[in-house]
Amino acid sequence: MFLYSKKLVYPINIKKKDLRMAKYLITQFGGPNGELSAALRYFSQKFTMPDNKGRALLNDIATEELSHVEMICTMIHQLTKDASIKELEEAGLGPYYTEHGVSLYPTDTFGNPFTASYFAVTGDTLANLSEDMAAEEKARATYEALIRQTNDEDIVGPLLFLRQREIVHFNRFKELYDYYKERM
Amino acid sequence: MFLYSKKLVYPINIKKKDLRMAKYLITQFGGPNGELSAALRYFSQKFTMPDNKGRALLNDIATEELSHVEMICTMIHQLTKDASIKELEEAGLGPYYTEHGVSLYPTDTFGNPFTASYFAVTGDTLANLSEDMAAEEKARATYEALIRQTNDEDIVGPLLFLRQREIVHFNRFKELYDYYKERM
Amino acid sequence: MFLYSKKLVYPINIKKKDLRMAKYLITQFGGPNGELSAALRYFSQKFTMPDNKGRALLNDIATEELSHVEMICTMIHQLTKDASIKELEEAGLGPYYTEHGVSLYPTDTFGNPFTASYFAVTGDTLANLSEDMAAEEKARATYEALIRQTNDEDIVGPLLFLRQREIVHFNRFKELYDYYKERM
Amino acid sequence: MFLYSKKLVYPINIKKKDLRMAKYLITQFGGPNGELSAALRYFSQKFTMPDNKGRALLNDIATEELSHVEMICTMIHQLTKDASIKELEEAGLGPYYTEHGVSLYPTDTFGNPFTASYFAVTGDTLANLSEDMAAEEKARATYEALIRQTNDEDIVGPLLFLRQREIVHFNRFKELYDYYKERM
Amino acid sequence: MFLYSKKLVYPINIKKKDLRMAKYLITQFGGPNGELSAALRYFSQKFTMPDNKGRALLNDIATEELSHVEMICTMIHQLTKDASIKELEEAGLGPYYTEHGVSLYPTDTFGNPFTASYFAVTGDTLANLSEDMAAEEKARATYEALIRQTNDEDIVGPLLFLRQREIVHFNRFKELYDYYKERM
Amino acid sequence: MFLYSKKLVYPINIKKKDLRMAKYLITQFGGPNGELSAALRYFSQKFTMPDNKGRALLNDIATEELSHVEMICTMIHQLTKDASIKELEEAGLGPYYTEHGVSLYPTDTFGNPFTASYFAVTGDTLANLSEDMAAEEKARATYEALIRQTNDEDIVGPLLFLRQREIVHFNRFKELYDYYKERM
Repeated sequence: MFLYSKKLVYPINIKKKDLRMAKYLITQFGGPNGELSAALRYFSQKFTMPDNKGRALLNDIATEELSHVEMICTMIHQLTKDASIKELEEAGLGPYYTEHGVSLYPTDTFGNPFTASYFAVTGDTLANLSEDMAAEEKARATYEALIRQTNDEDIVGPLLFLRQREIVHFNRFKELYDYYKERM
Repeated sequence: MFLYSKKLVYPINIKKKDLRMAKYLITQFGGPNGELSAALRYFSQKFTMPDNKGRALLNDIATEELSHVEMICTMIHQLTKDASIKELEEAGLGPYYTEHGVSLYPTDTFGNPFTASYFAVTGDTLANLSEDMAAEEKARATYEALIRQTNDEDIVGPLLFLRQREIVHFNRFKELYDYYKERM
Repeated sequence: MFLYSKKLVYPINIKKKDLRMAKYLITQFGGPNGELSAALRYFSQKFTMPDNKGRALLNDIATEELSHVEMICTMIHQLTKDASIKELEEAGLGPYYTEHGVSLYPTDTFGNPFTASYFAVTGDTLANLSEDMAAEEKARATYEALIRQTNDEDIVGPLLFLRQREIVHFNRFKELYDYYKERM
Repeated sequence: MFLYSKKLVYPINIKKKDLRMAKYLITQFGGPNGELSAALRYFSQKFTMPDNKGRALLNDIATEELSHVEMICTMIHQLTKDASIKELEEAGLGPYYTEHGVSLYPTDTFGNPFTASYFAVTGDTLANLSEDMAAEEKARATYEALIRQTNDEDIVGPLLFLRQREIVHFNRFKELYDYYKERM
Repeated sequence: MFLYSKKLVYPINIKKKDLRMAKYLITQFGGPNGELSAALRYFSQKFTMPDNKGRALLNDIATEELSHVEMICTMIHQLTKDASIKELEEAGLGPYYTEHGVSLYPTDTFGNPFTASYFAVTGDTLANLSEDMAAEEKARATYEALIRQTNDEDIVGPLLFLRQREIVHFNRFKELYDYYKERM
Repeated sequence: MFLYSKKLVYPINIKKKDLRMAKYLITQFGGPNGELSAALRYFSQKFTMPDNKGRALLNDIATEELSHVEMICTMIHQLTKDASIKELEEAGLGPYYTEHGVSLYPTDTFGNPFTASYFAVTGDTLANLSEDMAAEEKARATYEALIRQTNDEDIVGPLLFLRQREIVHFNRFKELYDYYKERM
């Protein structure tokens, strides 16, 4: 079962409204390479990992990614919460306002709703772990793009943290991949 | 942040392989009225609830629904894990085997991958809570259909528990709806 | 069977081209909370309502929502019909022009094509009516957002009318919900 | 505006429950070549037809197709309404029961929800009318497949009527295409 | 089997970066009326054409359309390859940068990923050829829209060539349609 | 540009109709881990590979995967071409017949139309090559599932060939990944 603690994994404290960046960040909530996509991928795969070692790793990282979903959402909420309609329209978020106001909804940067088609769960452990390693590389690449799109240290800090976690996860998945590869 | 505890919210202990029921249950993982759809709906909405009371309720129920996702997945895993290809094919799960083996993947009963199009987050508190009440009624209805589709007490027990939780959630959302309705 | 009368339910007479508003209004044609979504939801549900009272109400409102689809389309057409390519591009409708010229096509404000995933039809009367009540609240909320996005009285007038109808429909569905609730 | 009359365009009077055929017929409700797809295609296109002649034809056929949607739904409802869970499961409709009971929901025969991606509205009159002619040919082909899939005269009768209407519509669209081709 | 030759079907030599046009052109890669949609439609249909004449024509045009996909991609690549983040953002391509950098990805102008729902393959030769004729008209219409959206001769030249090919294909499909119509 | 040669990459000569296997094989045409998904992924990515070495490899494998699409389609066509409606229905392909007759249409085993959401193209070379390596592993896993689902040597032969090619491609992508990793 999942439990919730009010503390964020990493502190988010954005002082400057920035609708432009909110528009890009949303993909790490509901886009193909985002945190929700990662969390659901690992959570779904864990049930058929061959042993406790595999199940535990997948479960740990899935849970961590859920906490990253919350970080991303908190960032977007802080970036947008006081925006006026006029400001939203000027930032190209008029269409978003009509649909969602300034609420959070999981899409990519184009407004495509999140879909499980973004990830795969096969019946093969090595294929699943390859998928996971690729997911981590793609998430890293997306964070690097986002970091290049802003200079605000309050945004860059959490993004650097999240990027770093993707690299750690990649390495953990790589180790597990190698571990199973030897044994199969 | 989210934490994970190994204990399930409600014990799952299915002794009899049942591929037919697995095929139907999967919609409560990845279908329109399922637990994942509910969890993401409430989690997304919580950020713009007008006060702590609203945020807390949405957050609590979202977290509980995540734990229900795990219950559903555990049930499906227990129902399918030892199935042979022949058994899967006879139960009409040959197509599922090709794609996923006996792994878990979030779809409805037809194999449509989960999509966020199943739920809405508007900029309006009352509209969001109406959406949530409807979601709970639809989940209840789906559990009732599933209960009518089986006689296995090991399946019926958890489904009755889950159905009961949907009714509790409906009432909590109704109270919150009424609370905000008065104040707006 | 359906018949068509040239008269609109409410007169539409927009004198000022406004591409910005056309871009937002389109969601009430093909978006999740729009009139087409509502019409198809009620039309689909009517066949399994338990009695004539339910079937008649669902059918009446479905038919009325179809007429509202026409109102929305007429508004968008009047707002866009004389626009030049240059004007469309300046309003961010260059992509729309490439795909559709100034023709009508059912999408939300992001350009996502209409999908039936936006609505649900379960085998349960109360769940269906909850879904319908939520739909009316979400449509009301979307109209209120749109009304806040414009000052043009020729647009506001029809939107106020449509918003008012959603409230009436909500009440009708609520009555029917209560009526069946007592009897089940 | 649209009005509703209780009379069906063509009488539907199916005496024999047939879940197998219901499963195939549903595509003419919510599938790519179905009546809903046709109705929305023509309705959407009518607003930018170059003259009254074009607008009137598109509007007439759109309205007629809406009445055909109702015919198809009535057929499916008559074929399924008294089915037991056991019968539904034996006919491969167990998954449908979990999601929808015996209610109507617009999908193709695989359970894919209806999407507007099935049809196109460009800014070009001749392209739109070509699209419409193709739609009528595809609907005709689907009706012919369905007719080959049954021997029940109560089903074949309405399908032959609907097939015949598609041929009439094709010819009407062809005439309009030729008319505009000459003048452009 | 398919073979690749480095030579393009028609030379692409765009000297001026133009992000605005890249944004529109992409639909001819991954949009409903684009070259990929055409190539897959004809390729899929060829297997059940009634004779060699039909199979050969479908196969030839499918292969040619694949080469047109490459032309479109080459155009977009030349229009975007040296763009800075700042330029991309000013052209409204900030969201695209977050997801894809300046890489190619098959979508329409709104960012909807390519889907096979854009085309149909029925079991009926005449319906399939009608679909193909409509596809060619829609592609022609889209090229004409694109040509109206630019003055750059380096873009207009290849677009005129591609538009001309659609007309040739339309005529070839029309001949084949007439040929089979007589014989069926 | 692409050229076509009548010769298949590997001979397909299936002597026994087998609708069950056709139903599973189709995912290697239009499913998430199929040949079309692979071909489009590599083709899309090639334009922004950093040098000729990368572009050439991506282009070669994309072209080869297109030829594999043709192999898969040829297999399905040979497995189904003479099937009667009765045989199709008994094999659970009645729904497919209604929509497509025995024609080819790119879906997964559940009937979900192909979507580009199955693959990713980021602006990062290493992320793209990770995605490609994962794709090859997933395709390999799917071929292994399919091989376990049949005993027909005429089917197993080509599947073993295709599986082997995925392993070769994986290794080629791995080499390229390592090559760029060192240099970045």
